[in-house]
Amino acid sequence: MPKYYDELDDVIRALADPTRRAVVERLAKSPAVVSELAEPFAMALPSFMQHLRVLEDAGVISSEKHGRVRTVTLRPGALDVLHLWLGQQRTPAEHQAERLGIHLTRKET
Amino acid sequence: MPKYYDELDDVIRALADPTRRAVVERLAKSPAVVSELAEPFAMALPSFMQHLRVLEDAGVISSEKHGRVRTVTLRPGALDVLHLWLGQQRTPAEHQAERLGIHLTRKET
Repeated sequence: MPKYYDELDDVIRALADPTRRAVVERLAKSPAVVSELAEPFAMALPSFMQHLRVLEDAGVISSEKHGRVRTVTLRPGALDVLHLWLGQQRTPAEHQAERLGIHLTRKET
Repeated sequence: MPKYYDELDDVIRALADPTRRAVVERLAKSPAVVSELAEPFAMALPSFMQHLRVLEDAGVISSEKHGRVRTVTLRPGALDVLHLWLGQQRTPAEHQAERLGIHLTRKET
């Protein structure tokens, strides 16, 4: 399997958890320190750190420690691999609709 | 949690498996019958059918049975929910880059 598929697999598995997606949503706004990130979750810190580790191993986030404070950042372009894969799964009907400038079943929930 | 998040959760979990992603890739080209879909996979048919069931429960595919032949189709717009979520996770730097028409770290592997 090419490297692309390994990267895609890591990213999708990292996102297949609501806590980790909520972390990504928060970090899309700005970087944050771990204590601030963990705050909204009713979860022991070691469990939360494990989620961060999965995201970091998948290359979705990066973190940097200054003194006792660890700051976490969403890596720019980290989700591109999934974006690219999704684009490739358009059906011929969707491609045609796109050329015609119409949307078949766009759900803007 | 709004319905959107449930739908997103189902779709991401359905795609967090390489066999199921390969099925989606195949169906993006055209609908296919189950026997044809199953052929490339070294897997017992009941296990393969279980993967199809996960995709169907998540609303990613639909299937129709005519006589003894079941035809599987990728549902148009089924992946839109994930596409939409990904778009919302752009960082401020990515938004700005997009406005300027540049790509930060686009990986076209």
